[in-house]
This record gives sequence, C-alpha cells and structure tokens, in this order.
Amino acid sequence: VREVPTTSPRLRTDAAANRAKILEVARETFAAEGLGVPMIEIARRAGLGVATLYRRFPAKEDLVAEAFAGQMGECAGLLDTALADPDPWRAFCRVIAEVCAMQARDRGFSAAFVTAFPHTVEFGALRERAERGFAELVRRAQAAGALRRDFDPADLALILLANGGIRAGTPEATEDASRRLVAYLLQAFRADRAAPLPRPAAIPLDAALQ
Amino acid sequence: VREVPTTSPRLRTDAAANRAKILEVARETFAAEGLGVPMIEIARRAGLGVATLYRRFPAKEDLVAEAFAGQMGECAGLLDTALADPDPWRAFCRVIAEVCAMQARDRGFSAAFVTAFPHTVEFGALRERAERGFAELVRRAQAAGALRRDFDPADLALILLANGGIRAGTPEATEDASRRLVAYLLQAFRADRAAPLPRPAAIPLDAALQ
Repeated sequence: VREVPTTSPRLRTDAAANRAKILEVARETFAAEGLGVPMIEIARRAGLGVATLYRRFPAKEDLVAEAFAGQMGECAGLLDTALADPDPWRAFCRVIAEVCAMQARDRGFSAAFVTAFPHTVEFGALRERAERGFAELVRRAQAAGALRRDFDPADLALILLANGGIRAGTPEATEDASRRLVAYLLQAFRADRAAPLPRPAAIPLDAALQ
Repeated sequence: VREVPTTSPRLRTDAAANRAKILEVARETFAAEGLGVPMIEIARRAGLGVATLYRRFPAKEDLVAEAFAGQMGECAGLLDTALADPDPWRAFCRVIAEVCAMQARDRGFSAAFVTAFPHTVEFGALRERAERGFAELVRRAQAAGALRRDFDPADLALILLANGGIRAGTPEATEDASRRLVAYLLQAFRADRAAPLPRPAAIPLDAALQ
C-alpha cells in the first residue's frame, strides 16, 4: 500500500473535520460538566480514537485553550470596552454583570479562566491582564465616589464563588437566579449605601473556581 | 457456643460505643464531604463492618437524621429566638448570618436540611416549620419598613446557594469569606437602599443545596 502523503487534500479535510468535531464536543462537555472530564471521554463522545485526539491536542490544556479561545477574546473585549467607558460605575457594573452571566451560562469557561495549567501561557497572561484591568476599573469607580471605598479587588473572587454556587433546575433558571444575585450585590457595592464590612477574604482568584 | 442474650451489659456497652463512633465519623465525614459518601465508606472509617452499621442505622437517612439531630435543634432554637426578638430587622439579619455561618462551617448540615429523603418525617417537618418561620420574619421586617418590599422569601434559597459556593483554601478562610458575602447581601436587603431588581428566581429550597 502506498502511504498517503500528509499533505493530501483528503487527509487535510479529515483532520479539519476531526478538529472541529473535537472542539465542539469539548466546548459542550466542559460547559456542562466542567474541566474534570478526561480526554478519553472527550474522544469517545466525539466518536474518535484517543490517539487521534492526542495527535491534534497533545495535552489537555491545549484542548482547553483552543476550546475557549473565542470566549477568551470576548472577555478581553469586554474589559477593553469597560476601560474605554467614560462612566466608571457603569463600566464596573457591566463587567461584573457580564462575567457572571458568562459564568452562569458556561461552567467550563470560568474554570478554564482560573485554572492554573502550568504551560498555558496565554491563560496566565490573559488572567493577569484581566486582574490589572479590573483593579483599574475599581480604582476609577472609587475615585468617582460611586463604588464604596472598602470594596477590594479580591472581592471579585468572592463574587465569582457566590455566583458559581447558583445552580437552579434549568439553565434559564440558573441565569435568572444569577442575575438577581448580581443585582443585589451591585446595590451593596454602591458608596452611598456603605456600612462597615468584615475584612476582605484572602482568596486568590486561582483558588476561586477550581 | 452459647448465644449472648441481646440484653447482656457487655453487648449494650459495645453497641453504645459503636453507635457513638459511627455518629462521630458520620458527622465529620458529612461535614467535610457532604452527604454523598456511601455507607460502606462510613463503616470503613469507623473501623466497623458494614453489617454492624446497617444494624444500628437501617437506612442512610436514619444515620443522617441522627448525626444532625443536635444542629437541627440549634437551628429550630435560632428561629424561635428570632421570632421572639422585638426588633424584626435584627432578627432577620441574625437568622441569615447564623444559618450561613452554620453552612460555611458544615457542608453536611445544610445538605441534610434540604435533602428530600422520602422517609425522614422530622426533616420535612422541620424544614416546613423553618420556611414558615422565615416567611413570618420577612413579613415583620417588611412591615417595619426595614427590609425592602421586593425581598422574596424564595431569596433564602438564593442566599444559601451563593453562600454554599464559597470555598476558600481553609475552613477559617471559608468562614471569613462567607461573613463578608453575608454582610454585603444584608446591606443590599435594606429598604432604604432598594433599587429595582430582576424577578425572584424560582428555586425551591429543596433544589438549592443538593
């Protein structure tokens, strides 16, 4: 038998189809069940051998990074939009509301975002950029007198943990419940409503959503 | 061999010791890991055969009910105290703060409280009594003008879900973080700080903490 050259159009088409199928299955699975699902199970659900999966994605972190690349971009865009908003309180509220809505819709994304995979440089860089951007939003909203002065950027981990705890019977009910929680919290964050609080919880963002 | 009569003092002492050991292990295990831990694992950790465990507690719900009987009483007492408090806003805040602190300390208890075991009559009755008592506290705090009018008794499930999501690195960090979340939420619940909210989430309390 003649060996098929790796550049044959047929093989390229199959590879592209497999890759697309793997990413689709990975996104759905991680979103519904989190990142704990093993590679062999992703391969099974995609109807492919595990060797094919590992040929396309040599490590799980490669698969995770690729599966959430779109949402990563969305998240980065969301922060850029917020940082360009002339109203710092509106910008702060939008970032919290939109990140919590993403989290309520998709369990995989927030887990991917905070999981410390050792080699995914993009994830670490994105997270650092997000933390810096969020801290800047907090600073501006406090300087404008809208956000209470005892709000701590570390409260973002607290918000994400609390929001991550919301699981109602259906995805729609979960999103509704998350919206109500976020509305309550945003009202509590207003400077004109501030009363003393216990000290901020020392939860690193990494630890918040494993 | 002569069969030991079931009323022998020796057997009664062994039985009592086994029972105490089982309850101690069950409380610790359920608190740290929730109610999902199987009976066989409880027996293993107690250093007893599974037959001995089932002789003392024929069904898991019997074990759960007995293990949390003390906290059940504590919880009922907490509501009675709150209902006797002449300041309805203080009473409302204390109930939320104390129930959330119990939940942060002990994952098993809140799960036990909301789990619908088919035959644990005491649990169902206690839960109904708690729901009625809490609804009465809400009514009084709203009538006093302290609690916002759009606070819904169903928001208790939302609070417990959010608080249940808080898991920091250590038990102390988890309790700190829970206290800060509860302080934010209680400030958001004040009538004089109310701004419009999305509609209440339809989460039955049962569904909130499985």
